[in-house]
Amino acid sequence: MADPTRIWTAALIVIGDEILSGRTQDKNIAQVASWLGVQGIRLREVRVVPDVQDAIVEAVNTLRARNDYLFTTGGIGPTHDDITVDAIAAALGVEVEIHEGARAILSGYYETRGGLTEARLRMARVPAGADLIENRMSGAPGIRHGNIFIMAGVPYITAGMLDCLTGTLEGGLPLLSATIGCWVAESEIADLLAATERAHEDCQIGSYPFFREGRTGANFVIRSTNATTLDACTADLSAALERGGWTVTAGGI
Amino acid sequence: MADPTRIWTAALIVIGDEILSGRTQDKNIAQVASWLGVQGIRLREVRVVPDVQDAIVEAVNTLRARNDYLFTTGGIGPTHDDITVDAIAAALGVEVEIHEGARAILSGYYETRGGLTEARLRMARVPAGADLIENRMSGAPGIRHGNIFIMAGVPYITAGMLDCLTGTLEGGLPLLSATIGCWVAESEIADLLAATERAHEDCQIGSYPFFREGRTGANFVIRSTNATTLDACTADLSAALERGGWTVTAGGI
Repeated sequence: MADPTRIWTAALIVIGDEILSGRTQDKNIAQVASWLGVQGIRLREVRVVPDVQDAIVEAVNTLRARNDYLFTTGGIGPTHDDITVDAIAAALGVEVEIHEGARAILSGYYETRGGLTEARLRMARVPAGADLIENRMSGAPGIRHGNIFIMAGVPYITAGMLDCLTGTLEGGLPLLSATIGCWVAESEIADLLAATERAHEDCQIGSYPFFREGRTGANFVIRSTNATTLDACTADLSAALERGGWTVTAGGI
Repeated sequence: MADPTRIWTAALIVIGDEILSGRTQDKNIAQVASWLGVQGIRLREVRVVPDVQDAIVEAVNTLRARNDYLFTTGGIGPTHDDITVDAIAAALGVEVEIHEGARAILSGYYETRGGLTEARLRMARVPAGADLIENRMSGAPGIRHGNIFIMAGVPYITAGMLDCLTGTLEGGLPLLSATIGCWVAESEIADLLAATERAHEDCQIGSYPFFREGRTGANFVIRSTNATTLDACTADLSAALERGGWTVTAGGI
């Protein structure tokens, strides 16, 4: 039987000058992170790198070696700035080849859209030995090569690819979380938070301050893989806050 | 005189479990990226790391060595999960000390807010030898240590810190950009884009597809540090698209 305490990890590389220029607000980090959590896989590190082969190769080789899974988003389209497939093939030391399954998918998709041109055929190129990730949203599939998952940059297309991968990756216990909130400056209850975390092994408490409606507040996120521990820690933290005179809002403010 | 062609670079480390869990949508990458662009500094790489000292140390030491500037966001509050200052001090091999200027700021800020407790005094801790970055939004200042800028995680506080740094960092020529858009599948004009980029040295063209109102379109972002080159490339790309029968929308769709 698999070790139930094993922690499965993933890294994500977001590829694209448009994120590093500030032109585009990234949406993929949050959606990949949330999806991984449900699969019982922890997102350990994200790197955003430019459309530059050496930068992609360095990130791929570092992150794939120390995580169970590596995901990438961006740079798999038909244009000259889409270099992800070539860069990952270079990182793996394999050739780039046309995937016949991808060619068939693209042929079908473009049959009524002007035909499969040479530019469009670029989207059938994969690092040799790869499988496809179905794309329910548009023509070009994603690519799986061993523990590497190469996905689109456009968030709704990535969402569809993640959907297709749901339940197919081995993971561990999902990291459960509970959130409570108070209208309190986190600096007033820093000791209380630290003491509560120390009192509950295998629980982490994160403190996330905010300023709204002219007032200071904070949400506290308790995380654990163990539901009983999580509930106990959450209950203790709530009780300690209430004893301190603060009203606790379950689910956060 | 300084070399006008020198490219100044920066890296950003986003520190926080809440980003890696997907709970919080990061806003700092885009705002730091945009702000750096205006300062004539290119954001070259971003890493998102957890609230784990070793992960922060590795990222700090790699990225500060190969960039002119390093920015961090997150983990500088008063609670137990705020470990950025300790981690950066460890990376630099310096002690953590109380900054007397920061103590004075916090004393003033908390004078009418319950006083400067030990937890709040945590926010006056800096890697030895650091200066402060003014925080116009709330009490705790940001920290500058050489080419490292340690900022808040809450986006509006970070925005205020960036505002205070505006114009104070040496940079090069800003990377200018122009955007045009078409209702076209980017795969139809991939060759045209590549040829136009090749014809204009020192210009990059990025292609950003989208799907809206049931139709496929793409925006094309042309970037250069030279305004004349940028205008010429943008005009040539527009003309080529119009010759192909596509209506070009200046500024993008």
